[in-house]
Amino acid sequence: MSEIVYNDRTSLNPSTMLSPVPVVMVSCGSMEKPNIITLAWVGTINSEPPMVSISIRKERYSHDLIENSGKFAINLVSEDLVKETDYCGIKSGRDVNKFTHLRLKAIEGNVTGVPMIAQSPVNMECTVKQILRLGTHDMYIASIDAVHVKNELMDKKGSVDLDKAGLVAYSHGEYYRLGKYLGFYGFSVAGPEALKRRWRRS
Amino acid sequence: MSEIVYNDRTSLNPSTMLSPVPVVMVSCGSMEKPNIITLAWVGTINSEPPMVSISIRKERYSHDLIENSGKFAINLVSEDLVKETDYCGIKSGRDVNKFTHLRLKAIEGNVTGVPMIAQSPVNMECTVKQILRLGTHDMYIASIDAVHVKNELMDKKGSVDLDKAGLVAYSHGEYYRLGKYLGFYGFSVAGPEALKRRWRRS
Repeated sequence: MSEIVYNDRTSLNPSTMLSPVPVVMVSCGSMEKPNIITLAWVGTINSEPPMVSISIRKERYSHDLIENSGKFAINLVSEDLVKETDYCGIKSGRDVNKFTHLRLKAIEGNVTGVPMIAQSPVNMECTVKQILRLGTHDMYIASIDAVHVKNELMDKKGSVDLDKAGLVAYSHGEYYRLGKYLGFYGFSVAGPEALKRRWRRS
Repeated sequence: MSEIVYNDRTSLNPSTMLSPVPVVMVSCGSMEKPNIITLAWVGTINSEPPMVSISIRKERYSHDLIENSGKFAINLVSEDLVKETDYCGIKSGRDVNKFTHLRLKAIEGNVTGVPMIAQSPVNMECTVKQILRLGTHDMYIASIDAVHVKNELMDKKGSVDLDKAGLVAYSHGEYYRLGKYLGFYGFSVAGPEALKRRWRRS
């Protein structure tokens, strides 16, 4: 630690302060015995091939399910699912069947056979490719093998309009709906025509 | 691919559909020649020790800077920095000094010596521990070595109130401010007293 002192900021012990982060329901196990765990330590990690990572505490029930099957699904969270999402981050599948208790419907992934959540606006089927033991968490590096999107999020051109889904982010222990639209990728260097054409009108 | 067909959803080719994801300015290089790259393929991956990952395309200017130094800083993005953030995702540090051009101030990390962005509400100094070559992107697994938070985000008890920062998320090519508060971790199973005490009033 050097002698540098900041007048306008406070230096804290190292902690997981990245924010906002995603919050998703990860479904796993079998169609006969499906489970759900809510995770925020997840991320996109590669574009081509499309890959994600999820990190899970070793002691969680879903840890061994995913370790053994090598498969899981990521289910995105819309505002109407936030209570179920919180519950699936607190309760253990050892004690409760979360699908039954929360009246969530399990549907089978047509590529991996993994259970997915019918109420979620977007499901992604994933297969584990590599595992890193990092400390409290094991990190599962996975390929994205299929993506399923609710029809109401598909526009006429066959593109996905995720804005309609009312997705939820996680920030420092709290859930927030995505709010004010601030621009599209590239807006800072776009010309007036592109700005006019591409700027989202709500 | 099995014969399963969904009536209510459309199956797409595999793609990076996780959403929302973070969007951060990653600063790197030296104090003499600092650079910034905007990244969304980032995530918290471990709680103890605190760790993050960032994924960068091999051809980006910052890729080699981080590959060579093994250090970078994550700078969180508030609404007032969204234009600068977009610019740093589009333009290359080969062609422009982004700090100078955007009038961003570089401050030196007191643990790693890495340049950080003074205008960002939160800076995290990181050191690369492992690199995974995934395809289009290289993934840098890193420890979080220090966290610096603007004083106005510190409450009287010495806790961080990130809600005040007006943070930005990224969703399918668009920037959004965090919006409506939906609850705290554990709200779905909290009793009436805890709910009353802990529910955020804006």
